Amino acid sequence: MDDLRPIKTHLFTPGPTPVPPEVLAAMAAPVIHHRTPAFQAVLEEVLDALPTVFGTAHEVALFTSSGTGAMESAVANLVNPGDEVLVAEFGRFGARWGQIAERYGATVRVHSTLRGERPDAAAIGEWVAQHPAAVAFFTTHSETSTGAVSDAGAIAAAVRAAGPDHLLLGLDAISSLGAVECRQDDWGYDVVVAGSQKALMTPPGLAFASVSPRAWERCEQVTSPRMYFDWRKNLAAQRKTPPSTAFTPALTVVLGLRVALQILHEEGLDQVYARHVQLGRATRAAMHALGYELFGPDDDSSAVLTAVRVPDGNDGAALPKRLRDYGVTIAGGQDDLKGRIFRVGHCGWVNELDNVLCIAAVERAMAELGWDVEPGAGVAGAQRAHLGALAGAAR
Amino acid sequence: MDDLRPIKTHLFTPGPTPVPPEVLAAMAAPVIHHRTPAFQAVLEEVLDALPTVFGTAHEVALFTSSGTGAMESAVANLVNPGDEVLVAEFGRFGARWGQIAERYGATVRVHSTLRGERPDAAAIGEWVAQHPAAVAFFTTHSETSTGAVSDAGAIAAAVRAAGPDHLLLGLDAISSLGAVECRQDDWGYDVVVAGSQKALMTPPGLAFASVSPRAWERCEQVTSPRMYFDWRKNLAAQRKTPPSTAFTPALTVVLGLRVALQILHEEGLDQVYARHVQLGRATRAAMHALGYELFGPDDDSSAVLTAVRVPDGNDGAALPKRLRDYGVTIAGGQDDLKGRIFRVGHCGWVNELDNVLCIAAVERAMAELGWDVEPGAGVAGAQRAHLGALAGAAR
Repeated sequence: MDDLRPIKTHLFTPGPTPVPPEVLAAMAAPVIHHRTPAFQAVLEEVLDALPTVFGTAHEVALFTSSGTGAMESAVANLVNPGDEVLVAEFGRFGARWGQIAERYGATVRVHSTLRGERPDAAAIGEWVAQHPAAVAFFTTHSETSTGAVSDAGAIAAAVRAAGPDHLLLGLDAISSLGAVECRQDDWGYDVVVAGSQKALMTPPGLAFASVSPRAWERCEQVTSPRMYFDWRKNLAAQRKTPPSTAFTPALTVVLGLRVALQILHEEGLDQVYARHVQLGRATRAAMHALGYELFGPDDDSSAVLTAVRVPDGNDGAALPKRLRDYGVTIAGGQDDLKGRIFRVGHCGWVNELDNVLCIAAVERAMAELGWDVEPGAGVAGAQRAHLGALAGAAR
Repeated sequence: MDDLRPIKTHLFTPGPTPVPPEVLAAMAAPVIHHRTPAFQAVLEEVLDALPTVFGTAHEVALFTSSGTGAMESAVANLVNPGDEVLVAEFGRFGARWGQIAERYGATVRVHSTLRGERPDAAAIGEWVAQHPAAVAFFTTHSETSTGAVSDAGAIAAAVRAAGPDHLLLGLDAISSLGAVECRQDDWGYDVVVAGSQKALMTPPGLAFASVSPRAWERCEQVTSPRMYFDWRKNLAAQRKTPPSTAFTPALTVVLGLRVALQILHEEGLDQVYARHVQLGRATRAAMHALGYELFGPDDDSSAVLTAVRVPDGNDGAALPKRLRDYGVTIAGGQDDLKGRIFRVGHCGWVNELDNVLCIAAVERAMAELGWDVEPGAGVAGAQRAHLGALAGAAR
């Protein structure tokens, strides 16, 4: 790609996402010890700032792990062997709830939604009503494998109305937290899990579980074996004055997260969420302008990533591969969707100009691969969506 | 501390340890995606380089967690509820093996060694002979709470001779790996666990478990619930071509570890181990010159950190606190040893000049706190030890 030199790297995946240089700089400072006032002050700031993003007044447990580790913490702390567990999934990551619960000896019931679609809250409610003995219900907010974002509030309302009082609700907000509003307490989720490497604009290494008092009560009675992910152990350390961690944390990532949360709060969460909606809207407009068909929902709920169908006869895997030659990373499809879709992330530290650049790269790769494309149509579509929104806002 | 401006930070704890700027710089590069050839090449290099440090031909599983997470992986993958598990501990971190195994429903037998002393391999062998039904034996290489480093090879030999054939041996080398030679295969350990933030000169966030074929066989039969720390899941991903991780890794830390391992191999592991011995020797010489009594063994086995008794009547907690005013971090005692010892780390990216600086800071704090100290005696003692060794080497 001689005409593209110098190659610059751009990350447009649903996670890890690009990290602001201020965050990288904070992580490159000489390493400090985690049992010092300097680190404790950072940890305190992070633990104080996180609940706002979760929309909760509850404590947020911080783990050094991937998001799956935080999901496993929810299962290990809430589920005993033999318990009935309900999972409403609409993609690969929702299905993971069921895989973990099975490993912990639960009887798992699964409600599935067609790939690429948003789950139907009413249908889930009806299904939950048929399982009055279930102890826990798990679902997903943003399904990273398809780009569909559930109406997590409506689902919680339906499940609470239909399910037994003792039913605990868990939400995987790993790729949505900080991109799409989460209102844990209003919605009534007992645990919400997330990770550092998505819209929180920090490298991977940290994961979170916000724990309601009901979930805490259950966790004290559950006998499933756990140490590293034990909420009691982790939260006991965090409750100390000054706060601490039960185990040595990925402290450079915590230092980065502190700065990322500051940047997030400076922009203002409402503006952050509106920005993500706008990026999704422009990406969909670009794909329509190019004549490509969306795989996920064509509405403003798709604010984290945009999944696009690969036209029949084209090699779907070739697109991310060619983009890599430009320094640009997008995601292909996973499992059954391999080669059939591509996924453009617009999550985290991404603005409208970045988004146009991303479309330019996708368009360019399509042209070079001989896919059906009118050069300029995509970027113009995205740009019109952005400037139209701007004009709308200026009015 | 006006006379000390500008304050510069120095980390002399047994972990986290100081990180070379080249490692920090590698971690501050723009974030890349973990499913790309660029990251896969880094992961492959890291996975290829690690076994040498473990002294093993086996695979090393890589987790995003603290060292305790890797310890828990050893228990969760090797122990069923009701199994008899043997733990030979000589400090706080050895005891942790027992705590984890109890949480997994094991019947735990503990052999204890007096704090500050090295365990007696023959005595452990005799004790193991009394438990022919045990399935696993866990012990510690470097006990971070006291500075004692076990003769892990002699212990393994005694345990193998005395125990049943099916007994699996696990070693916590979290604070020793890369500071004191580990010869997993020669010694006969089935699993050795370690972390990124000690002698591997990388920030915390990654942990490792090197898995022998015997341990792998057992892990395939064990039913204890696990997903995130499941060796099968993690190693299946690592075995792919190119290698991958089962879950999103703390990828900036992996990028750093790659550079740290290069630095380690450039210095040469034999020289690295000799350096740690020399740093321990000089630190003990300094304490002797100051008239302070050691808490740990007074021999070259104490190569990771030096634990020193706080003289009666002195406030032991005041020393690390005062040092912090200088930007210098050392560790106090933990649990029963709180206020009774202080611990000077000389582990990882520390050279002889750093070591003299560290002694200078300790001496200075002692003097300011009114502890019994002859200013200059400590640094002179350390310096004589270093220059004597230099003269010896030049001969």
